[in-house]
Amino acid sequence: DGSFGSREGSLPRDCMYGRYTQELGVYAKEEAARLRDGGGLRRVTSVRSRSAELLEYEKDPCAKCHVCTSRCQKFLISRVGEDWIFLILLGLVMALVSWVMDYAIAFCQQAQKWMYGGLDSNMLLQYLAWVTYPVVLITFSAGFTQILSPQAVGSGIPEMKTILRGVVLKEYLTFKTFVAKVIGLTCALGSGMPLGKEGPFVHVASLCAALLSKFLAALFGGLYKNELRNTEMLSAACAVGVGCCFAAPIGGVLFSIEVTSTFFAVRNYWRGFFAATFSAFIFRVLAVWNQDEETITALFKTRFRLDFPFDLQELPAFAILGIACGFGGALFVYLNRLIVECMRKQKTINKFLLRKRLVYPAMVTLIISTLTFPPGFGQFMAGQLTQHESLVALLDNRTWCRQGVAEEFDYISHSHAWKHPQVNVFITLILFIVMKFWMSAVATTMPVPCGAFMPVFLIGAAFGRLVGETMAIMFPDGIHADGSVYPIVPGGYAVVGAAALSGAVTHTVSTAVIVFELTGQISHILPVMIAVILANAVAQSLQPSLYDSIIRIKKLPYLPELGMGHHEKYNIRVEDIMVRDVRYITLSSSYREVQEVLMTGQLKTLALVESTDSMILLGSIERSQLQSLLSLQLGPTRRLDHLRRHAQDNGTHTHTLGAHTHLTSLDTMDSPPSPPCTHTHSYTSNSSNTSARHGVRFLVSVAEVILNPLSQIAEWEEQQLDEPVDFNNCKIDPAPFQLVERTSLHKTHTIFSLLGLDHAYVTSTGRLVGVVSLRELRKAIEGSVTVTGVKVRPPLASFRDSGNTTSVSEVTELHKLWNRHRGLSLPREPTPPDMEDQLDLVFLCE
Amino acid sequence: DGSFGSREGSLPRDCMYGRYTQELGVYAKEEAARLRDGGGLRRVTSVRSRSAELLEYEKDPCAKCHVCTSRCQKFLISRVGEDWIFLILLGLVMALVSWVMDYAIAFCQQAQKWMYGGLDSNMLLQYLAWVTYPVVLITFSAGFTQILSPQAVGSGIPEMKTILRGVVLKEYLTFKTFVAKVIGLTCALGSGMPLGKEGPFVHVASLCAALLSKFLAALFGGLYKNELRNTEMLSAACAVGVGCCFAAPIGGVLFSIEVTSTFFAVRNYWRGFFAATFSAFIFRVLAVWNQDEETITALFKTRFRLDFPFDLQELPAFAILGIACGFGGALFVYLNRLIVECMRKQKTINKFLLRKRLVYPAMVTLIISTLTFPPGFGQFMAGQLTQHESLVALLDNRTWCRQGVAEEFDYISHSHAWKHPQVNVFITLILFIVMKFWMSAVATTMPVPCGAFMPVFLIGAAFGRLVGETMAIMFPDGIHADGSVYPIVPGGYAVVGAAALSGAVTHTVSTAVIVFELTGQISHILPVMIAVILANAVAQSLQPSLYDSIIRIKKLPYLPELGMGHHEKYNIRVEDIMVRDVRYITLSSSYREVQEVLMTGQLKTLALVESTDSMILLGSIERSQLQSLLSLQLGPTRRLDHLRRHAQDNGTHTHTLGAHTHLTSLDTMDSPPSPPCTHTHSYTSNSSNTSARHGVRFLVSVAEVILNPLSQIAEWEEQQLDEPVDFNNCKIDPAPFQLVERTSLHKTHTIFSLLGLDHAYVTSTGRLVGVVSLRELRKAIEGSVTVTGVKVRPPLASFRDSGNTTSVSEVTELHKLWNRHRGLSLPREPTPPDMEDQLDLVFLCE
Repeated sequence: DGSFGSREGSLPRDCMYGRYTQELGVYAKEEAARLRDGGGLRRVTSVRSRSAELLEYEKDPCAKCHVCTSRCQKFLISRVGEDWIFLILLGLVMALVSWVMDYAIAFCQQAQKWMYGGLDSNMLLQYLAWVTYPVVLITFSAGFTQILSPQAVGSGIPEMKTILRGVVLKEYLTFKTFVAKVIGLTCALGSGMPLGKEGPFVHVASLCAALLSKFLAALFGGLYKNELRNTEMLSAACAVGVGCCFAAPIGGVLFSIEVTSTFFAVRNYWRGFFAATFSAFIFRVLAVWNQDEETITALFKTRFRLDFPFDLQELPAFAILGIACGFGGALFVYLNRLIVECMRKQKTINKFLLRKRLVYPAMVTLIISTLTFPPGFGQFMAGQLTQHESLVALLDNRTWCRQGVAEEFDYISHSHAWKHPQVNVFITLILFIVMKFWMSAVATTMPVPCGAFMPVFLIGAAFGRLVGETMAIMFPDGIHADGSVYPIVPGGYAVVGAAALSGAVTHTVSTAVIVFELTGQISHILPVMIAVILANAVAQSLQPSLYDSIIRIKKLPYLPELGMGHHEKYNIRVEDIMVRDVRYITLSSSYREVQEVLMTGQLKTLALVESTDSMILLGSIERSQLQSLLSLQLGPTRRLDHLRRHAQDNGTHTHTLGAHTHLTSLDTMDSPPSPPCTHTHSYTSNSSNTSARHGVRFLVSVAEVILNPLSQIAEWEEQQLDEPVDFNNCKIDPAPFQLVERTSLHKTHTIFSLLGLDHAYVTSTGRLVGVVSLRELRKAIEGSVTVTGVKVRPPLASFRDSGNTTSVSEVTELHKLWNRHRGLSLPREPTPPDMEDQLDLVFLCE
Repeated sequence: DGSFGSREGSLPRDCMYGRYTQELGVYAKEEAARLRDGGGLRRVTSVRSRSAELLEYEKDPCAKCHVCTSRCQKFLISRVGEDWIFLILLGLVMALVSWVMDYAIAFCQQAQKWMYGGLDSNMLLQYLAWVTYPVVLITFSAGFTQILSPQAVGSGIPEMKTILRGVVLKEYLTFKTFVAKVIGLTCALGSGMPLGKEGPFVHVASLCAALLSKFLAALFGGLYKNELRNTEMLSAACAVGVGCCFAAPIGGVLFSIEVTSTFFAVRNYWRGFFAATFSAFIFRVLAVWNQDEETITALFKTRFRLDFPFDLQELPAFAILGIACGFGGALFVYLNRLIVECMRKQKTINKFLLRKRLVYPAMVTLIISTLTFPPGFGQFMAGQLTQHESLVALLDNRTWCRQGVAEEFDYISHSHAWKHPQVNVFITLILFIVMKFWMSAVATTMPVPCGAFMPVFLIGAAFGRLVGETMAIMFPDGIHADGSVYPIVPGGYAVVGAAALSGAVTHTVSTAVIVFELTGQISHILPVMIAVILANAVAQSLQPSLYDSIIRIKKLPYLPELGMGHHEKYNIRVEDIMVRDVRYITLSSSYREVQEVLMTGQLKTLALVESTDSMILLGSIERSQLQSLLSLQLGPTRRLDHLRRHAQDNGTHTHTLGAHTHLTSLDTMDSPPSPPCTHTHSYTSNSSNTSARHGVRFLVSVAEVILNPLSQIAEWEEQQLDEPVDFNNCKIDPAPFQLVERTSLHKTHTIFSLLGLDHAYVTSTGRLVGVVSLRELRKAIEGSVTVTGVKVRPPLASFRDSGNTTSVSEVTELHKLWNRHRGLSLPREPTPPDMEDQLDLVFLCE
């Protein structure tokens, strides 16, 4: 867990100041050594010209302000318009990506078939071709992803869930990841393994949105730099991802809401709908333009009869199917986690796999493709069909067998794969379900970009078809008693099963909508809804969703949900979980103290209190603000200023004329109050700015290091650090979030998840007494929710219970409140150290 | 607006204490007068026996505690199960209500037809029958509603929106309202006026949920008394309402989310889905059992061809249809509001209508039914069809006319209504659209329970049909160029138009899903989505939604949305809008001060500060808590205690023996600390308890009034009021919501709407400086959002702008912060009184 704590804080901590001084020191020594070797002057000149050039580049950063404000006004006026344009662009790009990828995947699969078909003279060669092809593709995918961006591995939905929660996982939204994900996914899906593209598509769409934002920001400036807006756009992007993957705009929006959000702002609704619709539209239009289809229709169009889709008396069968799918979904999630945990726990396997990262995917692929080899075992489980072909066959509206005897069904070209001369269709279906079940669970643990939705959907469809065919045999003329005969439609069961199983695995209800959009028919709405709800009820009571399971496996910094009703049970308060050792700065802090605080703390912002005695919270300051204050104080401008004055005082005009003019020019260029001003106006573009300025400072300091004795600089630095901080022009948030000690865990959780907070200060009558961050909250909650089905009671709560009765803790003891405020606070019952340890233990065990 | 402020606070303000003393005084005088007339003793005895009986009834209120805690545990364990049962019951009841109501409506309409048909010999009689029938029904509906519960008038969605926002509108969820709404709605719809049932059904379902909660609470005790839970249930109920009205579970859930929520908790999702599905299922199953249908299918099943639902080149037509519907929707909302406002402004009309409330609905009905009289003007606008029949005809998949010549279409029995021998189908359609448009806008302003969704849906379908028929004439063989001929399906246009117009009026996207579920076909998904999104884009930029419009007309206490992008524009801070004159109590307050504060304030809770000097906020106390403290201090127990001691001190044992034992027995029965204890443990059941105790106290005080001189009591009361309040055992919320003065309006708005707050305290370094309630926030926001299309700038913001520049206000001036804290606060720029007036004016004008 510690790794994530540092990841959250890693950017600010080792970003600017720390690295700056360290590098400076190293470089200074190197340069001094080189200087002693001679040839310094020429070098200085070249350094000067480059630094001057760089300074030219960022001359007068305040000039931006005017641009900013006028732009801001334009921004406000045109914001809605910009949104539309952005969403259209996003939809367009994603539709193109989706379409091209589909084409590439189809091509890959065709190539395999062609190879396999061409070699039908020799079984061994055929087997080698059948097996080698996916192994090569998967290995390439795994290797490529590993080298370019390991963040592209897996589904991406857990990560998006975490990012939308407000936690910054920067590496997950880079161009490298985009390339790795798209190419890796194409290869992985092209291999024909039981992998899906829905989850990765959510990630790809988010990547697209993030990159598009960046691109447009570079093109049009500040318009695309609002962080709140980016979150809104990311959440729209998730909808686009699902939408253009299945050409299911409504289902896409709903699925992305269910999967990624805890609280959903209804005003963002239209964004998702608009982008997903546009994207799905373009995606399908491309197919029409390419002459693949005559017009825009559903991806897996079904042709069930409309007038009598199902009998009322079939509903119990649908309900049983739903419940069975619920158990199946829970089993899938459990199996998937079990495999990952087994691999991790077996130390020898783990070590081996860590060294040879490509062995695992290659081995898994080898086993799976061997088992599906059509002339071998594959003939009993329709091994030669791709996912798409299998699904089309499973959703067919005609019955495969009747009266126990397999019918001849050759109307669809690839339906014969299901019919084996010696073996019943039922055996084929059961084998297909069982084999695909574990294969999918194993395949999704491979380190390639892949999702589990589509394989699960397929298994569900097969299971539904199995139930449907059974029903068709049991009631050959349909159930309906009076009058006309309506035979049972096994395809309808397949639709219901697909929705129910995928709903159970992902804990969503919107899979129902996705199947309607996917099949283009809504006639089975009631059976689908009933099955999906029952499947969800069963699965949710047994296991977390697949995505939550992955979040726990990957230990992503996501705030878990409070269990139903649990929050009333445990009366944990903020004072039990808060960190009492808060990093703060006071109004009279010196720069040295600021430096120390910056070195040690991890949170994005720091508390500003009145004084160490009063501890009254005045506000919070962003880390970057303090860093810029510090670098301003120790920065090259003031440093040069000091040096020049020092030189003038000593009357030593011994430097070369060139160096002197250089100093003067630098001085006039870089006017003192500019850096914080830049920070005020364009604080989202910090990174690029600071890196440029960093370069300048670096070069300038090289120049001065060469010209001056090192000791003098060090002395000056020490002196500067002892000065009190000047907080003028520093952006202070005067209203950081505050809780009081007795705020309940439940309330804290609600506030954190509703407002997407990272941390909140705990105050007691205005005095800062602690801080609670996501990490503490997560710890406290994870003690109280089910981890693997076993409920763990948070030790702190039980401790609390033994001390107080429930009724007493409800009534606030005023005298305590009073005494605490008066400073005569009662000796707080100290939490025994073993209790604290236990909490950590519970957390680590997981 | 003031009326709502007082309504919010009305319950606590005039509830317990005020009335108690007043009644006591009056009764005491009467009793004293009667005593003087003689016959006192017998009366006293009877009083004693009744009071003893009542005391017996609530003897040992703390005994409940054990029950409570054991129940609570059960509650936690079984909560989820209870939810399921509750939702099933709700779904069942609503399905039955919906089905019975549909039957009754169909019967009413059939009766009218039969009457009308039976009198075809005499035109005048026929006309009278045609007109009288709806006039009587509507007048009855209006009168019945008016007498039983005026809250049942109208749609109910605006009220539900307000209630789900957290504002208590108690009268809207009573049994009376339920009866009034159900019967009123049945009559209103049975009359055949262009009215809908969707909105009222949302209200009816919520009423059902509230009553069911109450009923189950009475049956099983505390399990159903959680307020948070009730809100969750209400939001599920809204989904049920829509779901069982249209048999559209998914669309129902989404529509109710879009219409009623600002932020939606995804964990409540399943509740809505489950209840709506169950309810829709039962609703449709009832139809099957009743032999109306063979199996469960869609309500308005369409039979469009599946293989080629529409041509890609038809999409521009669909888009134009969507945009036109957007304008139409905005016009409808505008027209509806215009009618209401006209009626209000015309003082003479207004006065007349207020006196004769039934004249307006009767007149409107008369006009509308006259115009639709089939042998009269109605023949040109299919006047004889009910809404249901019209919609079935409009959604038909065959073309009505081809090549400009009206075809013979007699395949559906009521399609001939559209075909007039002399008049083109187009003329009929246009007349239908235009007439129904204003008729619906007028009819929905009648004071009967009615919605506007269905009429708008119908108009949209007619408009779509018009466009579709036009397209069919323009492209008689379809647009598709190569190969097979696919004629245009005008029914598809009708579906698209219906979804787009109803989407535009309600500002929702989920009408798309509703039409899919209503027609049972999803093949037109892309055209529908495109049209709905375009219609929404147009309508949202022109007018508020119909429900928001009604909220403004009715001046319901709803927090409006911040306009898009507006929030960045106006830098209003909490300090600009907060109320500085906060009602608070201090730790050293006397009971008299508490009494005064209770008399004057309006908010549900009161701030507790350390002292008037320091003003440090310690917490907040609920009004009811203070009231119980006060009544405990002045209550009968202490009063009797005092009297007895007083009597003993004076050594006057002159009372009758009976009265003395009476006092003793009372004393032993009612042990001192019990009343606050009751409050602590069962504070949700306050009202019933207090009323019972109120009775007891009342009787007891009668007894003491009779036995003692009045002046002595008054003196004692004064003395008691001067004592400092004892806050022990008083429930204090130690963490009320706090903002600081510089919290922006945007942040405040977000927090209020996310957390459903009623008010928040404003503190400055722990000191209470003000309070912001919903009312202030609403005022501030309404200054900045469009009211009737004209943007009104909030005067405070403009004032602010002139003083500061934007950049300055971004950077917090630390010295101000510092000075303010130090108590040397800068003289705050006083808001000129005319500015304040202006704000009020803006608010009142609306």
